[in-house]
Amino acid sequence: MALKTVKQYYESLKDLRPTAYILGEKVENVHEHPLIKHMVAAVAKTYELENDAEGKKYLVAESDLTGEEVSRFVKFYKSPDDLLAKVRMLKFLAQNIGGCYMRCTGMDAINSVGIEAYNCDQKYGTNYWQRLLDFIHHIQKNDLVVFSGVTDVKGDRALRPSQQKDPDMYLHVVDKNNNGIVVRGAKIHQTGSLCAHWGLIVPTREMREADKDYSVCFAFPSDAEGVIHVYGRGTLEARPLEGCDLGNVEFSKFAPMVIFEDVFIPWERVFLCGEYEFAGEMVRNFGNYHRHSHGGCKCGVGDILIGAAATAADYNGLPNVSHINNKLAEMLKVTEAIYGCSIAASVESTPTPSGIYNVDPVLSNTSKLYEGKELAEVIRMMIEIAGGMVADMPSDRDFNHPEIGPLLHKYLKGVDGVSTEDRVRIFRLIEKLAFESRDIVSNIHGAGSPETHRMTILRNANIEAKKKLAKKLAGIKE
Amino acid sequence: MALKTVKQYYESLKDLRPTAYILGEKVENVHEHPLIKHMVAAVAKTYELENDAEGKKYLVAESDLTGEEVSRFVKFYKSPDDLLAKVRMLKFLAQNIGGCYMRCTGMDAINSVGIEAYNCDQKYGTNYWQRLLDFIHHIQKNDLVVFSGVTDVKGDRALRPSQQKDPDMYLHVVDKNNNGIVVRGAKIHQTGSLCAHWGLIVPTREMREADKDYSVCFAFPSDAEGVIHVYGRGTLEARPLEGCDLGNVEFSKFAPMVIFEDVFIPWERVFLCGEYEFAGEMVRNFGNYHRHSHGGCKCGVGDILIGAAATAADYNGLPNVSHINNKLAEMLKVTEAIYGCSIAASVESTPTPSGIYNVDPVLSNTSKLYEGKELAEVIRMMIEIAGGMVADMPSDRDFNHPEIGPLLHKYLKGVDGVSTEDRVRIFRLIEKLAFESRDIVSNIHGAGSPETHRMTILRNANIEAKKKLAKKLAGIKE
Amino acid sequence: MALKTVKQYYESLKDLRPTAYILGEKVENVHEHPLIKHMVAAVAKTYELENDAEGKKYLVAESDLTGEEVSRFVKFYKSPDDLLAKVRMLKFLAQNIGGCYMRCTGMDAINSVGIEAYNCDQKYGTNYWQRLLDFIHHIQKNDLVVFSGVTDVKGDRALRPSQQKDPDMYLHVVDKNNNGIVVRGAKIHQTGSLCAHWGLIVPTREMREADKDYSVCFAFPSDAEGVIHVYGRGTLEARPLEGCDLGNVEFSKFAPMVIFEDVFIPWERVFLCGEYEFAGEMVRNFGNYHRHSHGGCKCGVGDILIGAAATAADYNGLPNVSHINNKLAEMLKVTEAIYGCSIAASVESTPTPSGIYNVDPVLSNTSKLYEGKELAEVIRMMIEIAGGMVADMPSDRDFNHPEIGPLLHKYLKGVDGVSTEDRVRIFRLIEKLAFESRDIVSNIHGAGSPETHRMTILRNANIEAKKKLAKKLAGIKE
Amino acid sequence: MALKTVKQYYESLKDLRPTAYILGEKVENVHEHPLIKHMVAAVAKTYELENDAEGKKYLVAESDLTGEEVSRFVKFYKSPDDLLAKVRMLKFLAQNIGGCYMRCTGMDAINSVGIEAYNCDQKYGTNYWQRLLDFIHHIQKNDLVVFSGVTDVKGDRALRPSQQKDPDMYLHVVDKNNNGIVVRGAKIHQTGSLCAHWGLIVPTREMREADKDYSVCFAFPSDAEGVIHVYGRGTLEARPLEGCDLGNVEFSKFAPMVIFEDVFIPWERVFLCGEYEFAGEMVRNFGNYHRHSHGGCKCGVGDILIGAAATAADYNGLPNVSHINNKLAEMLKVTEAIYGCSIAASVESTPTPSGIYNVDPVLSNTSKLYEGKELAEVIRMMIEIAGGMVADMPSDRDFNHPEIGPLLHKYLKGVDGVSTEDRVRIFRLIEKLAFESRDIVSNIHGAGSPETHRMTILRNANIEAKKKLAKKLAGIKE
Repeated sequence: MALKTVKQYYESLKDLRPTAYILGEKVENVHEHPLIKHMVAAVAKTYELENDAEGKKYLVAESDLTGEEVSRFVKFYKSPDDLLAKVRMLKFLAQNIGGCYMRCTGMDAINSVGIEAYNCDQKYGTNYWQRLLDFIHHIQKNDLVVFSGVTDVKGDRALRPSQQKDPDMYLHVVDKNNNGIVVRGAKIHQTGSLCAHWGLIVPTREMREADKDYSVCFAFPSDAEGVIHVYGRGTLEARPLEGCDLGNVEFSKFAPMVIFEDVFIPWERVFLCGEYEFAGEMVRNFGNYHRHSHGGCKCGVGDILIGAAATAADYNGLPNVSHINNKLAEMLKVTEAIYGCSIAASVESTPTPSGIYNVDPVLSNTSKLYEGKELAEVIRMMIEIAGGMVADMPSDRDFNHPEIGPLLHKYLKGVDGVSTEDRVRIFRLIEKLAFESRDIVSNIHGAGSPETHRMTILRNANIEAKKKLAKKLAGIKE
Repeated sequence: MALKTVKQYYESLKDLRPTAYILGEKVENVHEHPLIKHMVAAVAKTYELENDAEGKKYLVAESDLTGEEVSRFVKFYKSPDDLLAKVRMLKFLAQNIGGCYMRCTGMDAINSVGIEAYNCDQKYGTNYWQRLLDFIHHIQKNDLVVFSGVTDVKGDRALRPSQQKDPDMYLHVVDKNNNGIVVRGAKIHQTGSLCAHWGLIVPTREMREADKDYSVCFAFPSDAEGVIHVYGRGTLEARPLEGCDLGNVEFSKFAPMVIFEDVFIPWERVFLCGEYEFAGEMVRNFGNYHRHSHGGCKCGVGDILIGAAATAADYNGLPNVSHINNKLAEMLKVTEAIYGCSIAASVESTPTPSGIYNVDPVLSNTSKLYEGKELAEVIRMMIEIAGGMVADMPSDRDFNHPEIGPLLHKYLKGVDGVSTEDRVRIFRLIEKLAFESRDIVSNIHGAGSPETHRMTILRNANIEAKKKLAKKLAGIKE
Repeated sequence: MALKTVKQYYESLKDLRPTAYILGEKVENVHEHPLIKHMVAAVAKTYELENDAEGKKYLVAESDLTGEEVSRFVKFYKSPDDLLAKVRMLKFLAQNIGGCYMRCTGMDAINSVGIEAYNCDQKYGTNYWQRLLDFIHHIQKNDLVVFSGVTDVKGDRALRPSQQKDPDMYLHVVDKNNNGIVVRGAKIHQTGSLCAHWGLIVPTREMREADKDYSVCFAFPSDAEGVIHVYGRGTLEARPLEGCDLGNVEFSKFAPMVIFEDVFIPWERVFLCGEYEFAGEMVRNFGNYHRHSHGGCKCGVGDILIGAAATAADYNGLPNVSHINNKLAEMLKVTEAIYGCSIAASVESTPTPSGIYNVDPVLSNTSKLYEGKELAEVIRMMIEIAGGMVADMPSDRDFNHPEIGPLLHKYLKGVDGVSTEDRVRIFRLIEKLAFESRDIVSNIHGAGSPETHRMTILRNANIEAKKKLAKKLAGIKE
Repeated sequence: MALKTVKQYYESLKDLRPTAYILGEKVENVHEHPLIKHMVAAVAKTYELENDAEGKKYLVAESDLTGEEVSRFVKFYKSPDDLLAKVRMLKFLAQNIGGCYMRCTGMDAINSVGIEAYNCDQKYGTNYWQRLLDFIHHIQKNDLVVFSGVTDVKGDRALRPSQQKDPDMYLHVVDKNNNGIVVRGAKIHQTGSLCAHWGLIVPTREMREADKDYSVCFAFPSDAEGVIHVYGRGTLEARPLEGCDLGNVEFSKFAPMVIFEDVFIPWERVFLCGEYEFAGEMVRNFGNYHRHSHGGCKCGVGDILIGAAATAADYNGLPNVSHINNKLAEMLKVTEAIYGCSIAASVESTPTPSGIYNVDPVLSNTSKLYEGKELAEVIRMMIEIAGGMVADMPSDRDFNHPEIGPLLHKYLKGVDGVSTEDRVRIFRLIEKLAFESRDIVSNIHGAGSPETHRMTILRNANIEAKKKLAKKLAGIKE
């Protein structure tokens, strides 16, 4: 089968019957729910672009399994060029969607699972790698969406999985038989879980022997029995619920909590089960890959932040103002550094025994650390440039009101030649870019928190070698 | 009459019949509207505290007009101590309300208008000062709320008022007779306009002779004929509309747009009319006062940001973690600097001919510049400490659902000894603190934008004197 | 006796015969040494200003011991106004000296010793407070300079004083008899030790019972037997050694290491000896006072940084350039915040049992934290504004050379109307301001290191109260 | 001829007789002068490493002119890989020299001149490109050092070259004949001019028709008649003058001013003369290349800053302290971003008609902007970690003094197992790294000033395309 069209993607969703709750209600046709459909649209856009002349250059690659054209979202990273192509694809998509397209967690999980599945097979003679290849082959053949489930709810953060009072605070195996395993637990912040056909579960931290049952990795259909998706509230919900004042008129993001109520997983979809020493490396690689993904994505989003700010300045009558240009340059400085470090992390990637390439961890974590710390400042500068009207525009419904509509059109006009409607649209987009909690919090906590990035940088930076260099220059003999 | 009680305040609102539109509908009992009532509650809290033993120390002062006890919100700043007391009052209120109490714009406007009303009288023999005293006397006697209307909609930002294509882009006098004036225009971001009894209009910029008609200052009842309040949308409206997941369970802020459709103002409420050379100084003084107000307020809000972050860390099981402590100290650094500079601006205040004291402009603008630039980082650190759960908690309605409620209570539990409910409450508060657009944008643009603060600092800092000092030390003879 | 004149100060130095080493040589007339005399000149300037009409307002106060006029440098802080006056004095001096005047450590030590001498007497019936009053009376009567010795050399920083392999790594009592005590150890970074008549030793950290012998506080003449001053090298020494290219043409700073080779101290100059529980509070108070001192001083130095940068811009032909103005405003933002927080720490000071006022520790440490972190950025901006010529100007000797002198005057000319000589002078001043290691390192480490400031802020900020406020707003019942 | 050895390099210098002045004296054997020899040693080190097994991988490349092994410092950038190899070479060298090796300006000039020499030939039929190839062939064959002369003294910075009162404020052609041209002017900050065999002059800004005579590019021997090198003073000169307390025991940097007193240049060494429209692009390309060079270099220096700080922490007894680790990670964040952006600027380079590759200007300027703004903070953190002893260590001469030497060895000891001597050495290195004005100012102003980088980023970032993307997402139709 070839690449899916948008239509085929929407049809494929109809075959899924996930258990889903939104704001206290169980929802049937979840993909059409006003709080979900803009997210589905973002994923659908990736299918549209797969079938588009320019988009194809970014999104479609040759499968190293079959030699056929496949979505780059479900392909292994087999060279530095694959990693470069990934960064560029994600930047391109973010420029066109203005936010999350909810498919990169799956891509990064496939690769990080692959490396350790292979390593585990080498050590223990398991056959996880072949199972994973079979799974990927199925995904590629049917051009499916995979989301990854990494973040457990974690309970008391100071305790390890096996030390928690409630043993279910990290997802774990509660039963096993000849056919497969049964798992229980909950994964949170599951970006795009309701837009995906499959999920791929990765342990969320390194494990010790006592945490063996928590060292589990597997794939499952998003509507598997016992899987419950619970919608997590974001900040701007009144808008899609009422169908106006959206900001980004087509796309949005969401991230449900996914609960596993004793879900059965057949052995052929299990890629790690008890070999705890691979859990840590698996999630660390996932983290490094995913920070690398953010590098492309957030530079693309940054282009929208910059473009929106510059447009607002134009509409306010302030093009080419010195201090605004200065801020635009500062915004670019950050977004390009985020991008540049991901490009560099691709160039300096190294092969693993599986043939999958690992990104340079220092550079990919540096990229994410700038995102985590500085992207908030980029957003602040966007607001500073755009002006106070980002705070509290009247609703489109007011603009359409027969009495006050004309007054609003009159009084909220900016520069001559631009309609009030367009001016309000750009303020609404800026509002969405600045205040959608799922995006803003993800800038900080997505792919791990800043402290994790700092520790990863430190662990990989070879400080001892740098000490030696300094001592030599100082004339210290060791 | 004595200080109003909360009950009296609510009753006094019932006598007001403002014309108000919210999300495309004309609203009658506006003070009870779910999108307004939490704002009214914040103002009501100031009345509660006026009548409270501890609160009184901060909120009640002796009137320099009558010697009676009056609300500090409607009193002139007649000494450095008055200015210190103001900063401390605002910090105290912000600590208890967790955000805006919507009364400081009026207080700052009263004083900035007073200085120039007096100066104008000296120059032109007008009697604006006495009119203002009469107005303030009325306000003090009845313990009323005044909001200030400063920010015009401004149209093309590169053009002066008289240069705009549409002459109404800045509020101006369109007619005059023996009884008073008629004004037209629109003021935006009118914090608390629907919680106030009166508004006090201040020109939004310096004016030239051609802008004479725009150089107008007056008071008006918030339900005056021709005055239309249009609700400006914020980010978290789905919550009060549904009555759940509020974050701050009692209080919130809003800032309508207020349109003047040929509103008549009697002469006794006009405090400037055409004397354009006083407009600039009036709004500059307002700006300096209002940046000074932010210094107290945002330090108080900062205490909530810090307290919320520290509570979240406790609930996550991470008390006393080195990097979290480090961030708490950095958060304090910013909020205390904001506060400290406002305290210092009070100490270094100077009297004007009217007897009203002016704050030190360099220090008050420095305070605001830290708010504008660094408070966003404080908020980012709060999110960083609290963790990703700020992004997307399920709704209270899910927690109350018979099927998934128990699962959510189980899986979203943090440290032992703290209920899941309380943990979710603190995440909701953090969400409110981080994502309420009206607050966050006000941190940046309230009381003028950072570029204005920089220019004000520069204009008042006496760079020439500093050059002289440097040259002398360098041995340069002039 | 009245206040000393400059001449009397210089004469008084002639009576001192300190043991001093500079760059490997024992030096006799140390106060005239080219590496010392510019430092002496800075102290002498304080005497000049004591006798100057304007300077007197800042530097001279009424003694609370005798009612006579005394130098504010040797007076107790008996009110918030005394603390305000101190901050303003230090700013004034820094503006006139462009750097360190080497007398504030003594002033801060006198007060911090005073508080605990009094407290110790209350607890143990010692008579330290009276001894200190007698000492201060002597100092005031003779208008003498006191430096404070706080920082021990410390050896292995992870070990307490009594745990060190070499017991002398912190100054301690090695003998005691009826007449006094004998002390051994070394204090480092002793700003102005060779310009002072007396030193006042303060323990450098909190102590436990095992560290009893290290809990010692006393005064000693700077030329006491066994006291050795060793010059610590700074960065720009080739200039004073050759007598050209000084930058600051009159003044400079230095900070020797002072070694105590079994120095005898009579009991009447001992103010703490073994009462270890007062050591910690003594040095913490010293720290808080001294960070408060920096607040005034560094704002004054900041005025020079700003004035020098603005002058360089003028001389380069770039007055009133938008991005330069922006940087000047940013420089002011930092220096005024440093100042403002010290002013506020004075206003919010509180009395101790001794009658001496303690500064607000959160605000004084906030001030210093901005200095430690942001003043480096102010200096960087000064260099950025001034341009690359700060790096590598030819020497005055080249300018005076018959062959290349005229070429240099020709080619290093800036804007018309300013001599090349003056232009070079301002670059030299900037070089001195940016690269004098003793100043720059003191910005970071003077009065303790940033981590200490953060810990002090955190310990004094009452985080628990802030948590309570946040919980209440979130609706959490405790 | 093959690559030069160190010995051959030193011998080759003996044949040069440059006219040089240092601190007011004309100097004969300039390469042995104490203020110059450490700089020569840095260049010599590049020759040593050319002949070293590991160094060769970085420093030696195949000439695209002759196919022979040549120094990468004198080779064209003919592919993205050449640019990657350059960045890695510069990082490697900086790690081994701890600062400037003074050869990258020449390398970058060769390439930027090459691009425009070729373009000019295409437009005007000149033969600059062939002349340049001949010159490079000579340089490669003899393995010579080339420095570039870009920065003119500039006089009044607000005026163009032809507008200056003194026409010599920018280097220009004052005469022309059949054999060549005669030039006059002065170039400042000429890194390594006295270590180089040749100089390559590049115009310092874009030119207009009136500035024709200033649009000149040529090569000249560093000891050509009429060329005068004047030493520019740095901050730490007392150390090499006395031969102790060096910090970096082998290497240093310097940057003389080079004056052209009517210097004759034969036509075969002239690569642009009057074709003013190429001047701007030439220097812009130089700037972009040179910012790209800094990316490798400053990451290597950063490794020394980090290694020195970590060593000082060890020696102080503070290994593995949480807040120090945090700072080390932050230091790495900056230095790796600087590096990463240069790597990315190489990957995204594009070919010019000459076949020489141009770096991505947005990414190379982003790299430099981080250096200009953030490297100062990295250095501040190094000082913060190392502690106050960086400020004022006694001299080695004191340590060697029979009386106080033993006392200093005793009292300045840190952690057990590390000699006092080594501890002092690391503080001295840190002092050198933090306070060598030529390095620190170059971080800010080298390769242009931050404002230039911002403007370059803005000009190349295609803001219009970003506006279009934002408008599309906001639903704005154009």
